[in-house]
Amino acid sequence: MPSPISLSKIEQFNEKEVQIRGWVRRHRSKGKVQFLTIRDGTGELQAILSKATMDEEQFKAASHLTQESSIEVTGRIRADDRAPGGYELDVSHIHILQLAEPFPIQPKEHSVGFLMDHRHLWLRSSRQHAILKIRHEIVKACRDFFDDREFVLVDTPIFTPNACEGTTTLFQTQYFEETAYLAQSGQLYGEAAAAAFGKVYCFGPTFRAEKSKTRRHLMEFWMVEPEVAFAELADVMELAEAFLVMIVQRVLAKRQEELKVLERDVSKLEAITPPFPRVTYREAVARLQKGGSAIQSGDDFGAEDETLLSNEYHKPLIVHRYPAAIKAFYMQSDPQQPDLAMCMDVLAPEGYGEIIGGGQRIHDYQTLLSRLQEHDLSEDAFRWYLDLRRYGSVPHAGFGMGIERAVAWICGLDHVRETIPFPRMLSRLYP
Amino acid sequence: MPSPISLSKIEQFNEKEVQIRGWVRRHRSKGKVQFLTIRDGTGELQAILSKATMDEEQFKAASHLTQESSIEVTGRIRADDRAPGGYELDVSHIHILQLAEPFPIQPKEHSVGFLMDHRHLWLRSSRQHAILKIRHEIVKACRDFFDDREFVLVDTPIFTPNACEGTTTLFQTQYFEETAYLAQSGQLYGEAAAAAFGKVYCFGPTFRAEKSKTRRHLMEFWMVEPEVAFAELADVMELAEAFLVMIVQRVLAKRQEELKVLERDVSKLEAITPPFPRVTYREAVARLQKGGSAIQSGDDFGAEDETLLSNEYHKPLIVHRYPAAIKAFYMQSDPQQPDLAMCMDVLAPEGYGEIIGGGQRIHDYQTLLSRLQEHDLSEDAFRWYLDLRRYGSVPHAGFGMGIERAVAWICGLDHVRETIPFPRMLSRLYP
Repeated sequence: MPSPISLSKIEQFNEKEVQIRGWVRRHRSKGKVQFLTIRDGTGELQAILSKATMDEEQFKAASHLTQESSIEVTGRIRADDRAPGGYELDVSHIHILQLAEPFPIQPKEHSVGFLMDHRHLWLRSSRQHAILKIRHEIVKACRDFFDDREFVLVDTPIFTPNACEGTTTLFQTQYFEETAYLAQSGQLYGEAAAAAFGKVYCFGPTFRAEKSKTRRHLMEFWMVEPEVAFAELADVMELAEAFLVMIVQRVLAKRQEELKVLERDVSKLEAITPPFPRVTYREAVARLQKGGSAIQSGDDFGAEDETLLSNEYHKPLIVHRYPAAIKAFYMQSDPQQPDLAMCMDVLAPEGYGEIIGGGQRIHDYQTLLSRLQEHDLSEDAFRWYLDLRRYGSVPHAGFGMGIERAVAWICGLDHVRETIPFPRMLSRLYP
Repeated sequence: MPSPISLSKIEQFNEKEVQIRGWVRRHRSKGKVQFLTIRDGTGELQAILSKATMDEEQFKAASHLTQESSIEVTGRIRADDRAPGGYELDVSHIHILQLAEPFPIQPKEHSVGFLMDHRHLWLRSSRQHAILKIRHEIVKACRDFFDDREFVLVDTPIFTPNACEGTTTLFQTQYFEETAYLAQSGQLYGEAAAAAFGKVYCFGPTFRAEKSKTRRHLMEFWMVEPEVAFAELADVMELAEAFLVMIVQRVLAKRQEELKVLERDVSKLEAITPPFPRVTYREAVARLQKGGSAIQSGDDFGAEDETLLSNEYHKPLIVHRYPAAIKAFYMQSDPQQPDLAMCMDVLAPEGYGEIIGGGQRIHDYQTLLSRLQEHDLSEDAFRWYLDLRRYGSVPHAGFGMGIERAVAWICGLDHVRETIPFPRMLSRLYP
């Protein structure tokens, strides 16, 4: 028996005898001929079973095949221009591993709740394959981007003794005698590591107990966060720009087929070239007000504001220098305008909203100490973080990108729930 | 002013004017000449300040430089065979960003507790640099190994509604109206994904609330877990073998310098070639008893047993077919000897103990259902997991490797606490 091959490598086996192991996507019987669409996770292939050339028992057993039944088939690969992938398989033997019960997910409309309850099976659809393979490509692109630029990977802790941005949205757990909070960001630890390694990134799951039920929120999401010593706001704006361009280029280069399955308008992605437009928060507010928004200077942007702003462009929009009052305690102030924070958000085009947030961190000890006091944060808990300003402090900056939002944007999805294998949402902890 | 360069690329700048930004590792003053060792996270360089050729003020300011002070220097790179890295810098200008307070960590013996309390600063030592750069290389090698073999990355959830291996060692958190447990493994979700994609892997943090204070345990550790459809025990033993060989080869090829810093005996790593020895649990017990161990057939191995067993070899040892009674509910039984589980552990050489555990999973619905009942596990909670056996079930197998134990072994460390940037141990949640 020939050894099993991957359907992704089918073109290497034209006119050869092969074994294929996979699942039945579709089955049609036309009397003396049966047509199977087989998927193996790497691709799909149409297989033809002909009564005339097969064992009668096997041909008969195959006639009962149901969607998602698991099979092993042997046969000959044949190039055929009419076949979807350019090849077909003439089956000589079929072995049925398991005849699947009637599959719950059919090619018809199901409710979102039903699909989410069956997420473990929904993952088998072409659409979910396309999304999760693009997710994989994006994750790999992120890591390659930083690895190629000498950033050191620093896996920051999930269990943390103190909260970075307020405790109301934190998940907590009993950690033996103490309480631990699940990290919302690895940034503070990234800062410590940047003082050791110069350029670092962390990349892991983060947790936010926000009671939001929107198409952009998950309770558990993955974030990649570079942090760079000797860098200022302008440096990380450039870094974020190069980063997004590289990721989109990589997906365009490697995942054309998946983008096609998702019917993604790739011209929208091809437009993602440097430079990205940059506007200050003040300019952005003025534009929004002119466009009819009720936003007041000093307010944070709502989702609608973000959409309104980014709709003016075909590229990601960098908004910088927000009021310090609405931003986190660790942000460096603009020396020219101390009420502004040296920070930025990157808003994805097509209404996908914020996908990157970052900026320059305070590097002066006294300034940071005052800021902790203003924010009623425990000096003792932040002792180690203050230490970074006592021993060779340098200007430094970084950002974080939420992977699920980036995947939603690049794939062109309505909701982040499909961007991660098993999404965790407000009332969704199963499967 | 020339733009800043990385010390890792110094050989490209011989006889050139450069700017270097970094921290002072060492400073010696000899009257009219000062010697600085500068680190920038990518490497180290000796810099020479000469009173005769420098601005007097700058020379004087430099004479007060302390360990870990942050600086920007400009000067000319000069090849010198006597210099540690083969190059030196003749400094023309120095700008001190911050004069560090007396650095707590000195080149002398500190207690482990003291170093762990200062982990955010300890990360700056050459030894910690070497370990964490090797960790980065290992993580990258793991991902490359699976990416190159068409495995799809599947980021499995951290929040899970049910426990995979008993609840006593689980961290839990309030998840709105429900209780969520932090994942100890992504395996069950990996199985669902393997039925969708054929070959998958997950790679993320996992959590175990074990009250163990040993040199091999962390509460929070990273694990990489491949899962393969249409695979049996023998297949994943081979996969684990190829995987470990590739990782060790990669570190040997790319991290010689770091291994040297750690004074690692690389001949021990060069010996990691296929095939690895394989013994059954029964053979292993017989050998242990012969060697004087009090182990009884049916007992699990203790750390000492693992060391005793692996000391016979210079390669990782694969122990397979443990008694089903001491293994998890989902393990496939050996058809020839149903009281044995089709599972394996890989024990690292040099007494590093188990670094990989895995095996073949039950693929028959009825068998799995009985096993859940025997283990008093809720059928309802495992409904989705049972579903995988109803819709195109196939033999499948996988394994998990703990990254920190692999790093400890490859680096030759006494304790896992140094293998992760911010270790979480029994009484260690800070910094």
